[in-house]
Amino acid sequence: MPLTTEFTHLLAVRHPIALAPMGGIAGGALAAAVSNAGGLGLVGGGRGEADWLDRELALVARHTERPWGVGFLTWAIGPEAVDRALARRPAAVMLSFGDPAPYAERIRAAGALLIVQVTDLDETQRALDAGADVLVAQGTEAGGHGGGRATLPFVPAVVDRAGPRPVLAAGGIADGRGLAAALALGAAGALTGTRFQASREALNAHAVGQALIEGRGDDTERGRALDIARGGDWPDRYTARTLPNRFLEQWRGREDELRGDAGALSAYRAAAARQDPDVVPVWAGEAVDLITDLRPAGELVRAMAAEAEGVVGRLGRALQ
Amino acid sequence: MPLTTEFTHLLAVRHPIALAPMGGIAGGALAAAVSNAGGLGLVGGGRGEADWLDRELALVARHTERPWGVGFLTWAIGPEAVDRALARRPAAVMLSFGDPAPYAERIRAAGALLIVQVTDLDETQRALDAGADVLVAQGTEAGGHGGGRATLPFVPAVVDRAGPRPVLAAGGIADGRGLAAALALGAAGALTGTRFQASREALNAHAVGQALIEGRGDDTERGRALDIARGGDWPDRYTARTLPNRFLEQWRGREDELRGDAGALSAYRAAAARQDPDVVPVWAGEAVDLITDLRPAGELVRAMAAEAEGVVGRLGRALQ
Ligand SMILES: Cc1cc2nc3c(=O)[nH]c(=O)nc-3n(C[C@H](O)[C@H](O)[C@H](O)COP(=O)(O)O)c2cc1C
Ligand SMILES: Cc1cc2nc3c(=O)[nH]c(=O)nc-3n(C[C@H](O)[C@H](O)[C@H](O)COP(=O)(O)O)c2cc1C
Repeated sequence: MPLTTEFTHLLAVRHPIALAPMGGIAGGALAAAVSNAGGLGLVGGGRGEADWLDRELALVARHTERPWGVGFLTWAIGPEAVDRALARRPAAVMLSFGDPAPYAERIRAAGALLIVQVTDLDETQRALDAGADVLVAQGTEAGGHGGGRATLPFVPAVVDRAGPRPVLAAGGIADGRGLAAALALGAAGALTGTRFQASREALNAHAVGQALIEGRGDDTERGRALDIARGGDWPDRYTARTLPNRFLEQWRGREDELRGDAGALSAYRAAAARQDPDVVPVWAGEAVDLITDLRPAGELVRAMAAEAEGVVGRLGRALQ
Repeated sequence: MPLTTEFTHLLAVRHPIALAPMGGIAGGALAAAVSNAGGLGLVGGGRGEADWLDRELALVARHTERPWGVGFLTWAIGPEAVDRALARRPAAVMLSFGDPAPYAERIRAAGALLIVQVTDLDETQRALDAGADVLVAQGTEAGGHGGGRATLPFVPAVVDRAGPRPVLAAGGIADGRGLAAALALGAAGALTGTRFQASREALNAHAVGQALIEGRGDDTERGRALDIARGGDWPDRYTARTLPNRFLEQWRGREDELRGDAGALSAYRAAAARQDPDVVPVWAGEAVDLITDLRPAGELVRAMAAEAEGVVGRLGRALQ
C-alpha cells in the first residue's frame, strides 16, 4: 500500500520521493535507479554544461521507462541548457536558486512540468507567480546550497501559500521518518539529496561516501569561503552546507579577506586540482547523522517508502 | 481518540504537548491553562528569581489539579532555586542550557521527573549520562535561546541515541501539522514556545502579541547583540532568535565592538527601561508565520491536538 499524494498523481510515480538534482553528482544512472524504484529521478544539470548533459540525459532515457526530470541552477544557465534538456522529453524541469520566470513558458510549451525550489517566502511568491507546477520548500539543514529557513516550520508556511499546488519538503530528510514528517506537515512528498549522495550510483569520489558515513550533523556548517575559492560566482544570498575541512577552518569569518588574497586563491586551486581532502568540499546536510552505509539508490527509495508507510501505521495505532 | 505516546503515559497527561518554560513569560496562569487542557504546563522559572517563582508556582498549584512542572536556565541557577521549586511538588523539572548533572539527584529524590533540553548531540549524551527521564531536542528555528541544529533532522538523531527515553521535539512547532510531524520523526510529543507566547495568559506586553501576529519567519534572526546589551552573561554558544529591531540592525556583526562601547550599552539600558520597541527584544521562532491570532492557551492545546489527530487520519487514508 504505497502512500499516494498530489505529487504521485501529478508525476505518475509510485512513491512521493524525488532525487535532488545534485549538480554533477546525480547523473543518469542515479536518476534512472530512483525512477525505476518508483521515485522521481532528477538529473543534476547544474550550470548546464552541454557535454555532461548530453551524456547523462542519454543515460537516464536509456535506463528507465518511468518519468524522470532534470534540474538546473537558475542563475547560472541560459535558454540553451533548458532547450537541450527539453529535447530529451523529461517529465519535469526543476529550477533552483534564481528567477524561474524567463524559462517557465518554454518548459510548459514542451509539455514538461515546472518544479521550483524555494528558500524563503519571497521566492515562494515568485515561483507561484511564474506558474510553478510543484514547489520544493528547502530548509537550511539541507546539504549543498540554500538559505536560512528551517524545514519544519517553512514547509507548512509554503503549503499555506501554495493552495492546490503540491509542495515537496527538502532538507534533513534521509529516512522514512523524515518522509512521513514531510507528509504530516502538508507536503506531498520529499526531495532528498545527502542520503542519495551516499548511494552506489552517485558520481562521487570514494572518499566522499566514507566522509558521509562518518560525518556528524553537528559538524556541518553553512559558509561562503569554498564558493569564493572555487570562483563560482554564486549569488551572495546562498551559502553552502558542507562537512568541515582545514580550508574552512582557516577562512571562516574572513571571507572578504579571502576574496582579495590572490595567493590563497591560487593555492586553493592547486590543492583542489590534486583532490586534497583539506580543501575539497564535501557537501552534506545535517541528516548525515542518519547515514550509516552506502546503498544502491533503488533500495534507498524502497526502504524510505516502506518505513514511512510503517510510521503512518504506527501513528494510526497511537490514536486510541 | 487522543494520540497517546510514552510521554503521555509517563507524565499522565492527555495530549503529547508541553508548554515551553519561557522565562518570566510562562507564569502560573499559562502553565495551569495548558495543564487543564490536557498538556503539560511548565512554568518559566528562568534564573530562579525567588519572589517570582513563589508567586507563579503558588498560582499554578492553585489553578490546576493536573500534572505541571517548572523549567530553569541551568547555567544561571543554584540548588536553592531547584529546592524552592521541588517544595511545591511539581511533576517535572526541566533544565535547559548547561550541565544538568549537579541537580539530577535532588530532583529524582523529590520524586519529580527530570526533563533536559538539548541543542546538539554532545548535550544529548550528557543529558542521558545525567539520567534524564525525558529529552527535549530543540532546533535552531526555535524562538528564544538555542543552538544550531534544525529540528527535522535533529529529532530522529536524538531519538536513535535516547533508546527507551521519550524525546519531545521543540522548535518550529505551532500547530497540529508540526505536532504530527514530531510524532512521525519518532518524538513522543512537542514542546512549544512561540505559539503559546501569543496566548491570552502569557505574561507579555500587548505589543508583543501584535508583533507575533504580524511577524514573518523569514525576518527572525539568531544573534548575541541583545544578550550583550542586556548584560545577561549568556554562555557564548547559545544565541537568541528574535524578530528584527533597530538595535539589532545597528549591531549585527559588530558584537565585539558593542561589548566595549559603554555609551551604547547605557543608551540601550535607558531605552529598554522605557520599553522602547526599537531596542526591546521580541523573542520569536520561525513558526511565527503560522500565528494569526491571540487565543486562550487551553484552546491552543485542544486545537493542536485535534489537528494532529486529523493529520494522522489523513495520512492513513493516503495509504492505499
Ligand atoms: C551534494 C549536493 C549537491 C547539490 N547540488 C544541487 C544542485 O546542483 N542544484 C540544486 O537545485 N540543488 C542542489 N542541492 C540541494 C538539493 O536540491 C536539496 O535541496 C538538498 O539536498 C536537500 O537536503 P538534504 O541534502 O538534507 O536531503 C545539492 C545538495 C547536495 C547534498
Ligand atoms: C519567549 C521565549 C522565551 C524562552 N525562554 C526560555 C527559558 O527561559 N528557558 C528555556 O529552557 N527555554 C526558553 N525558550 C525556548 C523554549 O524552551 C523552546 O525551545 C522554544 O520555544 C521552542 O521553539 P518554538 O518557539 O518554535 O516553539 C524560550 C522561548 C521563547 C519563544
